[in-house]
Amino acid sequence: MNVVLNPPLANTPIEGVRHATLASAAQGLKGLSVWSQVLEPGAGTPLHRHDCDEAVLCLSGRGEVVLPGSKVFFGANQTLCFPRNVMHQIVNTGDEPMRLIAAFSQSPVGVYLLDGAALDLPWPS
Amino acid sequence: MNVVLNPPLANTPIEGVRHATLASAAQGLKGLSVWSQVLEPGAGTPLHRHDCDEAVLCLSGRGEVVLPGSKVFFGANQTLCFPRNVMHQIVNTGDEPMRLIAAFSQSPVGVYLLDGAALDLPWPS
Repeated sequence: MNVVLNPPLANTPIEGVRHATLASAAQGLKGLSVWSQVLEPGAGTPLHRHDCDEAVLCLSGRGEVVLPGSKVFFGANQTLCFPRNVMHQIVNTGDEPMRLIAAFSQSPVGVYLLDGAALDLPWPS
Repeated sequence: MNVVLNPPLANTPIEGVRHATLASAAQGLKGLSVWSQVLEPGAGTPLHRHDCDEAVLCLSGRGEVVLPGSKVFFGANQTLCFPRNVMHQIVNTGDEPMRLIAAFSQSPVGVYLLDGAALDLPWPS
């Protein structure tokens, strides 16, 4: 068992997105990864999918999740559930930072863009 | 993709423990379950293990995790990582509510007590 002091959020190559990995294979987990992220107003992820399940808890802020052909608005106290391989993009369309906790059913987490290319994550996943 | 308004925390058969399931098989996830729990001061889980990985994020409060033969203190802004089948008990030894987010690498989540008996969870997992 590992007890980890959550690392500080660090800037990422995605403008306006800060990240910290809270739990992953580095802590002995084989099928679970948990991240903390903060998206500044206007910031967003690329459109992407994972080859595992994902749940995103919105702790504060509001925004939209872009799916192929549709958009869904969400905000604090809501949870987004993405089954394996569902394409999605998360954008902070509000005027305050959006704080998210994301959990994944594998570690490391595979990320794939719309063209099928694997994204090399800049953080431990 | 599902967007779910987090259900309110509900009392459980464990005194001083309130629970809400935020994400699970009911939202189309096959390998992931996420719970929110609040433990009042003095409250704790039984000693148990899961047949999957678990990560527990402590959002507020402080307490101890009891392992076979040892105890580890933890608090807000720390994350507990339990690989599959590690026995553990979480107790709020502080004087304020302990708010936890727990993520599991399967849904439904198997829970087993020290004698090997499966615990029938009173919430969707």
